[in-house]
Amino acid sequence: MRTFLECYPCFLSQALRAGRLATNDEVQIKRLLDEVGAMFQTIPLESSPAQSGRLIYRKVHEVTANPDPYRQIKQRNMQQALGLYPELKKIVARSEDSLLAAVRIAIAGNVIDLGVNHDFDIEKEIEAVLVKSFAVDDYKAFKDQLQRTRSVLYLADNAAECVFDRILIEEMKKPVTFAVRDRPVINDATREDAAKAGFGDRVTVVSSGTDAPGTVLETCSREFKELFYRSEFIISKGQGNYEALSGQHRPIFFMLKAKCAVVAADLGVAVGDIILKSING
Amino acid sequence: MRTFLECYPCFLSQALRAGRLATNDEVQIKRLLDEVGAMFQTIPLESSPAQSGRLIYRKVHEVTANPDPYRQIKQRNMQQALGLYPELKKIVARSEDSLLAAVRIAIAGNVIDLGVNHDFDIEKEIEAVLVKSFAVDDYKAFKDQLQRTRSVLYLADNAAECVFDRILIEEMKKPVTFAVRDRPVINDATREDAAKAGFGDRVTVVSSGTDAPGTVLETCSREFKELFYRSEFIISKGQGNYEALSGQHRPIFFMLKAKCAVVAADLGVAVGDIILKSING
Repeated sequence: MRTFLECYPCFLSQALRAGRLATNDEVQIKRLLDEVGAMFQTIPLESSPAQSGRLIYRKVHEVTANPDPYRQIKQRNMQQALGLYPELKKIVARSEDSLLAAVRIAIAGNVIDLGVNHDFDIEKEIEAVLVKSFAVDDYKAFKDQLQRTRSVLYLADNAAECVFDRILIEEMKKPVTFAVRDRPVINDATREDAAKAGFGDRVTVVSSGTDAPGTVLETCSREFKELFYRSEFIISKGQGNYEALSGQHRPIFFMLKAKCAVVAADLGVAVGDIILKSING
Repeated sequence: MRTFLECYPCFLSQALRAGRLATNDEVQIKRLLDEVGAMFQTIPLESSPAQSGRLIYRKVHEVTANPDPYRQIKQRNMQQALGLYPELKKIVARSEDSLLAAVRIAIAGNVIDLGVNHDFDIEKEIEAVLVKSFAVDDYKAFKDQLQRTRSVLYLADNAAECVFDRILIEEMKKPVTFAVRDRPVINDATREDAAKAGFGDRVTVVSSGTDAPGTVLETCSREFKELFYRSEFIISKGQGNYEALSGQHRPIFFMLKAKCAVVAADLGVAVGDIILKSING
């Protein structure tokens, strides 16, 4: 997905939010905004927002010297998500179509996105997503192809969201390679976060090699790219991964909630809609 | 009032909004965003947002070659406001304190602010402002000092708001010098706009000499500054004028609705609050 004009004010707001978390030094944050503003001319409309986000968050790190401004928030969200796990399992257990319920729960977890959303109420979100209609609904293809695949490449999004992903992974009953960011960026999942989610033996956690807030392939490791291109079944969670991969011709299922007008427009849906979209490789 | 960190993303959003109205050429708007972003390092936190706004909207003009992107919107709003005038007069006529009702109506008109607000429902706004409590209430001082003053300097804000100002001016029954922007900026009132509001003989319309979206004195004409410093009773409408003049020690009554978190914080009120604040000269 390309960058839209509306992304630039959002980049600046994101830099401000991260800057405020990274430091209390207003002069430093002002310098961050100045430098992010000055970067715009090097961020073309043709690049994906996730690609640009990488540059923005690198600048946050460079100017504030804080490599992980969202660390505490991530930890808090992770504790909250782990506390919800038993209840989420019960919801799946009493569902008519437990796989569908698990997909919905995995999408509900996607609301924990501090790049775009400030405030969210995760329990309310789960309730809503369990009954909401998909604006793009490729569930049938998802279910069919899942039965045939030997393994799943699962592209993680946010840290605490991993607990919700675990629910889906446990329902899929396939070996899963769970790919996370190489270094902290916003509240995205890293290896350290994934380790807390309580995945069992069926899950191998790997780094994609990127520090972008999305699986921007040019910035991923050679090993990950090889894995990506030979995978027969890929789940891509969240906006950042959608932004980075929407132009790929691989067997990807995008699961996300459209949280901003730009991504919603790109998908042809409304803000707030939930999506399970298949790209056939 | 100083510039806050939160103002910078807002400057960029404002540039984007004005740019979209000024031209359909996406490449041109991208250049506008690039150039506004690059300007941040020349906009210190010590300057007022209205001062910075002047630079932003000058850049919109420079890059898009459109000196008045809000022209059509201003005309539409003006027609709407003129259509409301008879009803506004009736509201004042049936009020117990007709001056207070007129003050409230003048503040309600301040909602027509396209720099900060995209959408508004003016009739709903009037209803709300007529009954809402002032978060800062210097009405008594306003009424007392008005009785003693020989004349009023009235600093206009937005174009269609002039019709609402007219209601208050007619109630004050004093000679009024009505100061507008020298050139179009956002939807602020110029001489051309004020001429449409239907002011009677008691009102002299003058230009403040500025093209800032607020009465930024350094950018005003010598004539206006002389007038300003010798005025014994000044009404200042809206956020832009408040931003520019809040640090002055002159007999100013600020009338506005706090529309953004930054101005609300500076005033110590909540977003959406209405204010009639006196500064004693």
